[in-house]
Amino acid sequence: MTDWKTRCAQRKQAQLESIPKEWLINAPPTDRMNVMDIPKECGLLSVRELEITETVDVEVILQKLASSEWSSVEVTTAFYKRAIIAQQLTNCLTEIFVERALKRARELDEILKNTGKVSGPLHGLPISLKDQFTMKGLETIMGYVAGIGQYADSDSVLVEILYECGAVPFVRTNVPQTLMWGETHNHVFGRTVNPYNRYLTAGGSSGGEGALLAIKGSPLGVGTDIGGSLRIPSAFCGLYTLRPSYERLPYCGAANALEGQESISSVLGPMANSISGVKLFTKSIIDAKPWLKDPMAVRKEWSDREFELAYHGGGKKLCFGIMWDNGVVRPHPPLLRAMSITKRALEAAGHIVLDWEPHRHLEIYKNSETIFVADGGEDYRISCALSGEPLIETMLPDEGAHETTLEEPYVKRLVGPPQHRTTYELWNLHKEKRELRKSHLDHWESTVSRTGTGRPIDAIISPAVAYAAVPHGLNSDSFYTTLCNAMDYATSVFPVTFVDATLDHRHPPHEFYNHEDEAIYNLYDSGLFDGCPVGLQLIGRTQEEEAVIAMTEIVDRALRQYKTTNSS
Amino acid sequence: MTDWKTRCAQRKQAQLESIPKEWLINAPPTDRMNVMDIPKECGLLSVRELEITETVDVEVILQKLASSEWSSVEVTTAFYKRAIIAQQLTNCLTEIFVERALKRARELDEILKNTGKVSGPLHGLPISLKDQFTMKGLETIMGYVAGIGQYADSDSVLVEILYECGAVPFVRTNVPQTLMWGETHNHVFGRTVNPYNRYLTAGGSSGGEGALLAIKGSPLGVGTDIGGSLRIPSAFCGLYTLRPSYERLPYCGAANALEGQESISSVLGPMANSISGVKLFTKSIIDAKPWLKDPMAVRKEWSDREFELAYHGGGKKLCFGIMWDNGVVRPHPPLLRAMSITKRALEAAGHIVLDWEPHRHLEIYKNSETIFVADGGEDYRISCALSGEPLIETMLPDEGAHETTLEEPYVKRLVGPPQHRTTYELWNLHKEKRELRKSHLDHWESTVSRTGTGRPIDAIISPAVAYAAVPHGLNSDSFYTTLCNAMDYATSVFPVTFVDATLDHRHPPHEFYNHEDEAIYNLYDSGLFDGCPVGLQLIGRTQEEEAVIAMTEIVDRALRQYKTTNSS
Repeated sequence: MTDWKTRCAQRKQAQLESIPKEWLINAPPTDRMNVMDIPKECGLLSVRELEITETVDVEVILQKLASSEWSSVEVTTAFYKRAIIAQQLTNCLTEIFVERALKRARELDEILKNTGKVSGPLHGLPISLKDQFTMKGLETIMGYVAGIGQYADSDSVLVEILYECGAVPFVRTNVPQTLMWGETHNHVFGRTVNPYNRYLTAGGSSGGEGALLAIKGSPLGVGTDIGGSLRIPSAFCGLYTLRPSYERLPYCGAANALEGQESISSVLGPMANSISGVKLFTKSIIDAKPWLKDPMAVRKEWSDREFELAYHGGGKKLCFGIMWDNGVVRPHPPLLRAMSITKRALEAAGHIVLDWEPHRHLEIYKNSETIFVADGGEDYRISCALSGEPLIETMLPDEGAHETTLEEPYVKRLVGPPQHRTTYELWNLHKEKRELRKSHLDHWESTVSRTGTGRPIDAIISPAVAYAAVPHGLNSDSFYTTLCNAMDYATSVFPVTFVDATLDHRHPPHEFYNHEDEAIYNLYDSGLFDGCPVGLQLIGRTQEEEAVIAMTEIVDRALRQYKTTNSS
Repeated sequence: MTDWKTRCAQRKQAQLESIPKEWLINAPPTDRMNVMDIPKECGLLSVRELEITETVDVEVILQKLASSEWSSVEVTTAFYKRAIIAQQLTNCLTEIFVERALKRARELDEILKNTGKVSGPLHGLPISLKDQFTMKGLETIMGYVAGIGQYADSDSVLVEILYECGAVPFVRTNVPQTLMWGETHNHVFGRTVNPYNRYLTAGGSSGGEGALLAIKGSPLGVGTDIGGSLRIPSAFCGLYTLRPSYERLPYCGAANALEGQESISSVLGPMANSISGVKLFTKSIIDAKPWLKDPMAVRKEWSDREFELAYHGGGKKLCFGIMWDNGVVRPHPPLLRAMSITKRALEAAGHIVLDWEPHRHLEIYKNSETIFVADGGEDYRISCALSGEPLIETMLPDEGAHETTLEEPYVKRLVGPPQHRTTYELWNLHKEKRELRKSHLDHWESTVSRTGTGRPIDAIISPAVAYAAVPHGLNSDSFYTTLCNAMDYATSVFPVTFVDATLDHRHPPHEFYNHEDEAIYNLYDSGLFDGCPVGLQLIGRTQEEEAVIAMTEIVDRALRQYKTTNSS
């Protein structure tokens, strides 16, 4: 068999060849860090294509598709071209299959033309997919060399349903080897960078989606999340996302790492430049009754009542709890400012904002991280051994790494080296996890005494990550995100602001919680982060997807209103 | 520390002393096998107490309680007395706490008297609980000597909710050591026998509930089920039950064996002499929003739409598939007759009945059984070691065992001796399980081509066990039940008929599937089983509790109608 490096080089070359020659652009100089304006500057996109791709409200795109104002072929072409630009700037794609996507778009256009009817709630919409969502006839490389040449003979359930909904899957996007990193780099396709600043990571593991969507190379993407993999890239790239609860959306048939690990399940969710995209995707998939195709999918219809916030006083006067600091890693100044803005915006909109008291945060984190390596790394070893590629031990670049101050992530000290646990030991970790979930639930319920609404706090507002996007290899924090995976809380991410060097000054040092907190403190440099997006999480209860989306809409509207008022 | 045998004897003596002296009856001769009429014969119950306790429709009891026609004190007293009779005949109880239950009943009566309002949907109703449902101030012995003296400092979530619903928890009921037997015997409280024939088992692991409810010593009981533990005793004792899907009803805070085993979760469910009891319990608990107290509970409201069979054509013309034989163990003649009766009754009621084709039944069973012992028996060993009691290796009685023909259950040959699996091995078992669930779901969905209703088969009718209650120590079959735990299908059991020696002749031998099938064939003897109840399962989809209850009502009505027509 060819050695793994040669196979990677061949596959990468094949990827390059799958790009239509006329879509290649003149690459900007490598020292141009912010490439967000290249799609407009490069000349590849027509005025109409720019108009289409800069329509961030997915509902509007769908309306124009349904009314035939835009055809699926032109929408798909526009986003495809922009995705190819994104690829040349950030290396965000894996599978590129232009002809296949356009053929599908043409068919949908024909059906609409002939019948006058759309082919489903996502008619004609191009959708990008993280490199886990198996599609018949394509490889599912998923960051492992061993995936090269493995062509799928069926679609994953999500893809089946997307077809039923009338969507046009059009690209697949990059992931890290093992999927268990908050950055995106692997031996086959290489590293994905952040289009706001290519010196910084786009996050991970759904980092290909993050970079692609930031640059508007897709109107709607699908990623996955086991410890923050939807939310970290969404926060770093200025996007909206939803981490639904376990099995609310159908994972069946998608490739995965740690397959069979069911203690803290990976979930899939949408990423988009608008909350409307998040809602439309979630509702469309649930309305398709995924439980008829995926035996693990929760049999729970989309609830308009829950979306209307029946359990939250109709949304009239909500009470939010802000998690200013989880007691493990203190957020950087831009995050604190983002929370302050959100607090003022919500109060201005008539809602109540209290402080959230973190509860056993580090214990919960440690339990999850211990479970993730309870196979002692066996899954990674076997996946690498299939091709002979080495396990990637760091996300630091070989050359040009940032002068780093973090020698060892705190998680390694907490959990120790991966140990292969017995089943009985795993069951004990589950007992501990259940006790933690009960304790956290009771803690949340007990806030009813503080809110004055007659209800406990409706949702928690929290950083997704303690900082905006960091230099490659330095993203160590999943303390804020993993809480939600462990507790199975439905959680969104929404963009709030951008780092502003004139506002976000370094704070005086605090009493550090641990060496990582100190390292993260020391990393802060307003110049390094200037202009990067800053997003926050909205954390709701387990299986409360409808309410979390609705509350995110409320927060989003409040922020827009507040910004309008305060800039005028 | 006192040796375990002495502790057991002391605890058993304490149990005896907890029975009011005036409720002790003259024990019938030990060779009287059917004791079902003793409650009427023994003279302990007044005419009114007999009337109360023989009211099997729980809805009627609740109406009489709500209208103050019956007080909770008199209803609780009547059932308590009958439960104590049941205890003296079948050894079905563990915790007996008469004063506490009557105090609670008095309080409820007072509230109703003073406010004119009931205290919840289960106002005043005595409810029996399997010896897992922790109650503050009581021990939770759960079949292990180590449980003696361990007094709970809080209620399990189910008990909390039962209190909120106005119920009166009044006894706890016997279980086998380890909970992982289809019979009921442990060192502390001994063996529970079947009141229809004390030579036979009441089943297990919710066997205390089975015997108690059969003799009408409780209007409603709560058991649990990981491989058939609700359904086996319900079938052997002529009861209705519901095995809901994982976490639809709140297990949090209940004691359990194999705690932390989440691959195939144990679930709790109601057992009763009427399907109305099953519905009332399930709806009441779900309406109490268990997800606010139990972090694992599914956030899914009770759906009247699903109960009205919105997904099953409104229930007008259903299509059932009968599993005559699962290809592992052929059912005994009374079971085949019960299925024939059910088929004819359903057809007479206008429904369609097809044959269900079993699908990978043995593979599914083997996967589950392998998971159940993936700790290599560590949980059992540790639980026994706490007190020094030995692990119970057989349910055969020390004396007077039936002449048995089964040397070794087939499961032992299938799975081999328990092996302590690593986490990675467990994950591989999960992968296998997921593939099996997908395959079984697709198989079920594919029946749409055969039904003529435009829908797949609405529910499967199947034996719960291949036979009626068997002599102690001989219940080896959980092949029919475990399917539903592995696939997480919501499943009911309903009574159909009784073994009739004049009708249920031995069949000629078939080509045996395995040595256990042969042994079970040879066990059949119409005289041995004569008069025993025969029940069947109704198997629905995952999280389809509402529809399964509704379809069981339809089957139940069809059977009553059919029996009326055919006996007139």
